[in-house]
Amino acid sequence: MSSQPPGETVSARLSRLGYALPEQASGKERYVPYRRDGSTIHISGQLPYVDGALPAQGHLGRDVDIPQAQESARLAALNVLGVAASAAGGLEHVRLVQMLVFVASTPDFGDQSRVADAASSFLLKVLGENGEHARTAIGVAALPRNSPIEIQMICTVA
Amino acid sequence: MSSQPPGETVSARLSRLGYALPEQASGKERYVPYRRDGSTIHISGQLPYVDGALPAQGHLGRDVDIPQAQESARLAALNVLGVAASAAGGLEHVRLVQMLVFVASTPDFGDQSRVADAASSFLLKVLGENGEHARTAIGVAALPRNSPIEIQMICTVA
Amino acid sequence: MSSQPPGETVSARLSRLGYALPEQASGKERYVPYRRDGSTIHISGQLPYVDGALPAQGHLGRDVDIPQAQESARLAALNVLGVAASAAGGLEHVRLVQMLVFVASTPDFGDQSRVADAASSFLLKVLGENGEHARTAIGVAALPRNSPIEIQMICTVA
Repeated sequence: MSSQPPGETVSARLSRLGYALPEQASGKERYVPYRRDGSTIHISGQLPYVDGALPAQGHLGRDVDIPQAQESARLAALNVLGVAASAAGGLEHVRLVQMLVFVASTPDFGDQSRVADAASSFLLKVLGENGEHARTAIGVAALPRNSPIEIQMICTVA
Repeated sequence: MSSQPPGETVSARLSRLGYALPEQASGKERYVPYRRDGSTIHISGQLPYVDGALPAQGHLGRDVDIPQAQESARLAALNVLGVAASAAGGLEHVRLVQMLVFVASTPDFGDQSRVADAASSFLLKVLGENGEHARTAIGVAALPRNSPIEIQMICTVA
Repeated sequence: MSSQPPGETVSARLSRLGYALPEQASGKERYVPYRRDGSTIHISGQLPYVDGALPAQGHLGRDVDIPQAQESARLAALNVLGVAASAAGGLEHVRLVQMLVFVASTPDFGDQSRVADAASSFLLKVLGENGEHARTAIGVAALPRNSPIEIQMICTVA
């Protein structure tokens, strides 16, 4: 965290890292992007969509290698940030709590933690101390639209 | 939501939709059906039991088709409502927060969202605005008793 | 619970059952062992490590039998207790809320509940009423380091 310019906003930091928050979808889904319970914000599972498309599809251990999956994990985390910023009134107010990382895996793939680390590192870089989080990473049989990654997050308003 | 009679209670709406809340089990399990944390209610994973039996068993993509799984998803959601009503002091007081839908899936099945949509739509029909929820749907290798669906829910007292 | 000596502390009870809380790791991970949200404590997914090694590896239904998996479930639960005690200021102050048990499973294995029961029973024995919890048990394709079990817990300060 030591290389960040003093006084830099979280939004500026995200830009400097080369990312932009996604537009929030119009909400034709049958569920909401997030739901509040007091000051706690539950964010719906996010896929690594970029402009409505998945940059990688398939399973770790067969179709998708670890660097590809790590980029997908960062993109899913970016989509989490988009929803969280919308829910909390801006990125500056987002404080992460718990991240659940689902990695589509063949039965013999055991490196889910390395994939999830990419999301964790990205979130810490962007949010600093507010980006600290408890985490669970597991390998699942399949994900919607054959995505290699899905991330569910609980956060609060900082 | 526009077709519901004005002033209709949630319980009446559930009846009109052709469903009845299940009897709550006697609790010989080694865990409790729900646990409160302040006003937040965590509901144990619910299978689509009807009178102690599962109407469908097996995996999406092999044994169970989408319409069968959608009916199982509605039944698991109904069992969630049964526990939630018991916890919140009646269906009128149930406000959903976050739903986690597990779909037993072969590795090539990617329509978990369509299965979970059946549960989401059902809950919205029954509870109206209180039925809105964040959601995560994933495909898992296997579920207890070879169930095609399991649903975990977090809710609050409305 | 009737066999416990009157006035026995939770720590003493754990010792009597033949277990000791693990040392808390130094935290070189990219996520934290737990994260608080008000009085709620979210604990990162715990594997059944004993001194840094997994006593069993592989899948239920193929490599690991139910008694082995039950012992792994107790060990993962013990690691949960270690983090929870650290977060809550001692085991006496730990009150469980919700446990999510992931069991690495072949597609035809449906006894996830029997495996999770071992963790539930252990936690109830150690914590008494504070050990009651909502629970979800599912079968997943694979877990980090080929572990047969992973447990995620939400708890509060009693």
